[in-house]
Amino acid sequence: MTVYNYLSFLTDYGLEDGFVAACHGTAARIAPAARVIDITHLVPPGDVRRGAAVLAQTVTYLPPAVHVAVVDPGVGTIRRAIAIAAGDSILVGPDNGLLSWAIAALGGPGQAIQLTNGDLWLHPVSSTFHGRDIFMPVAAHLAAGLELTGAGDEIPTAELVELPAPTSRIQDGEAEGEVMSVDRFGNVQLSIPAAEAGRLGIGIGTAVAVRCGRRQLTVPYLDTFAAGAPGEIVAFTDSAGLISLAMNAGDAAQQLGLPPGAHVRLSQAHTAKAR
Amino acid sequence: MTVYNYLSFLTDYGLEDGFVAACHGTAARIAPAARVIDITHLVPPGDVRRGAAVLAQTVTYLPPAVHVAVVDPGVGTIRRAIAIAAGDSILVGPDNGLLSWAIAALGGPGQAIQLTNGDLWLHPVSSTFHGRDIFMPVAAHLAAGLELTGAGDEIPTAELVELPAPTSRIQDGEAEGEVMSVDRFGNVQLSIPAAEAGRLGIGIGTAVAVRCGRRQLTVPYLDTFAAGAPGEIVAFTDSAGLISLAMNAGDAAQQLGLPPGAHVRLSQAHTAKAR
Amino acid sequence: MTVYNYLSFLTDYGLEDGFVAACHGTAARIAPAARVIDITHLVPPGDVRRGAAVLAQTVTYLPPAVHVAVVDPGVGTIRRAIAIAAGDSILVGPDNGLLSWAIAALGGPGQAIQLTNGDLWLHPVSSTFHGRDIFMPVAAHLAAGLELTGAGDEIPTAELVELPAPTSRIQDGEAEGEVMSVDRFGNVQLSIPAAEAGRLGIGIGTAVAVRCGRRQLTVPYLDTFAAGAPGEIVAFTDSAGLISLAMNAGDAAQQLGLPPGAHVRLSQAHTAKAR
Repeated sequence: MTVYNYLSFLTDYGLEDGFVAACHGTAARIAPAARVIDITHLVPPGDVRRGAAVLAQTVTYLPPAVHVAVVDPGVGTIRRAIAIAAGDSILVGPDNGLLSWAIAALGGPGQAIQLTNGDLWLHPVSSTFHGRDIFMPVAAHLAAGLELTGAGDEIPTAELVELPAPTSRIQDGEAEGEVMSVDRFGNVQLSIPAAEAGRLGIGIGTAVAVRCGRRQLTVPYLDTFAAGAPGEIVAFTDSAGLISLAMNAGDAAQQLGLPPGAHVRLSQAHTAKAR
Repeated sequence: MTVYNYLSFLTDYGLEDGFVAACHGTAARIAPAARVIDITHLVPPGDVRRGAAVLAQTVTYLPPAVHVAVVDPGVGTIRRAIAIAAGDSILVGPDNGLLSWAIAALGGPGQAIQLTNGDLWLHPVSSTFHGRDIFMPVAAHLAAGLELTGAGDEIPTAELVELPAPTSRIQDGEAEGEVMSVDRFGNVQLSIPAAEAGRLGIGIGTAVAVRCGRRQLTVPYLDTFAAGAPGEIVAFTDSAGLISLAMNAGDAAQQLGLPPGAHVRLSQAHTAKAR
Repeated sequence: MTVYNYLSFLTDYGLEDGFVAACHGTAARIAPAARVIDITHLVPPGDVRRGAAVLAQTVTYLPPAVHVAVVDPGVGTIRRAIAIAAGDSILVGPDNGLLSWAIAALGGPGQAIQLTNGDLWLHPVSSTFHGRDIFMPVAAHLAAGLELTGAGDEIPTAELVELPAPTSRIQDGEAEGEVMSVDRFGNVQLSIPAAEAGRLGIGIGTAVAVRCGRRQLTVPYLDTFAAGAPGEIVAFTDSAGLISLAMNAGDAAQQLGLPPGAHVRLSQAHTAKAR
């Protein structure tokens, strides 16, 4: 029997209602010894890709846990509810791809279960709040020691819904990626791993040509955004190992007009200038 | 002696200052074994009705606890501070109606106490921050095992301030209610219990005539908003057992222009059309 | 060996990403017995003064703890990382003045350490997320019982960066100060201690002349904002012992156009009127 001391919790429920607390309360009733680490509840409503990215970038820094994630625009329809073993943890949520990048970050899926054991759920089960009525109760039972197979029926991991990976490719001397996220500081995280870009000679000390839409600019690749001059846009390796664009003491996303999903291409500046 | 393992906490303090943390710290000093479940701290400033609604809809999902709620535009004036036993819990806050709907949800008031035992308070008591100086210290002492009568003087429950119940009536073949809340998804929760509306033949599969102000529209009553077509407004039974209006992949409140408090009438669509 | 049961945590990381949770997870791995009290994560990005004010006003209400604060626009540059003993607590963060007012509130600095023991850090250390990679791991080790000197090299407390104190002086019959903060209710907290202003005869029951820029108004000094008429601006002693301006059932900061940092002068109204 494996007992988990932690649950983690990520949703798009927001913080203005009692939704998150109702789930915390449900967990406390079933697994009073488990602590809940809230990842975020401010995923934009229904934005599965954003939820998946935040979850994947956070989960490897958490202790072994049952990770509950609910960004679930299809709640109440036929999408499956699942629990997946991965690394030293279990992930619980809707089978809409939300969990897929985190599963990969934890080393790939182990046993996969469709949540069909209704004895674990909170009844009556609402049609719109499965976080409270299905996902969190099941997760709390798992944290308290229930075997994974007790939550439902095993399903082939090959059947799990996977989100398309973010664009990230290197060709013709360019690294192409998309904006993964924009944080509160206006830092623009690209889906281009610093390690990959290194194959193009992009790295600390080089000048980087950045192309997004019709715009092109040349920025220095520095250790950190704080090494730039105030107002200067710089590229750097961020805390997730990805290339990010930032402005020291400013908001790069606003300045560059780069929302999540926008495509960006990087190359060594001399290459770009030659074009 | 009853010890509570949990405190819950709802306020309009916001999350940008240290107000909530000062209360958490005060609780930790007095009742280190108790855990705090935050319900929300984003009740609109001074909006007692909104705080009462969120508290009442959440509290039944929490474990037995001392529930502290502070939305208190009359802080420092003569409004009383109270602690009320209800169900397996105690509620602590200002006597301005904030607690009244939650008390009802927990089965009605048991013993009621006016907080007059100043020995429990944090001194000097500020005139504007009774959450830190009175409510939370008293609640923490209660969680740690203090008898309810140790917090002050018993008062008749008939004297407690009660908020007027939300409009909800059925007459002339119509269910009339008001908008209880609008959540982050733009879902419009009405004060009309699905069970009540059922008496008019409104239920899953029926077409519902919705009248708000001069607008009238006909929407399907479905299992869940996700069963609607994208952009379609639907009625459904929400996770609190109330009728809600939602738009699949959209914001119904914005589309319909329905803020909290707005009046809405529902009837079977054929009835409405006959008018 | 001193073990701390609590960590407190204040940042400008925001709540939309997984940054705070990654730090919580890091703490949980190293010091599973310690609980984290979040002070706020909504300090305006890079606003060291605002972070320092919130920390100083909150920390005295928390139990003995390792207080971690990260508002760190110079992350990754040569600014030092420090841990300082103060009162019954330890403060951990960047040496940019962020901790200085809280240290004073706790009674002044004891032993001061520059964080140089990289064995405690999370490797690879990112250049931009020292909260996760340096500050929180070190704080968690300290909470778990590591001696302060185990975190690095002792430095003279006289070398610590201090923020300039907020303006607060009394001369020519006037108390002069600046806006320390504006809270969610629009209350304007001034850097003028009520005790100091008392020397000018300003106190409960007096009429106060308020001068800000070219504006002058006379307001009553009351027990609390709720004692004012709806829409009336009043002065009162706030929960931090400072003079604040507020509007009952309204937003004084908006009405007066007073942002943080704005200068304000107060005097007894008859003095002001005589001019």
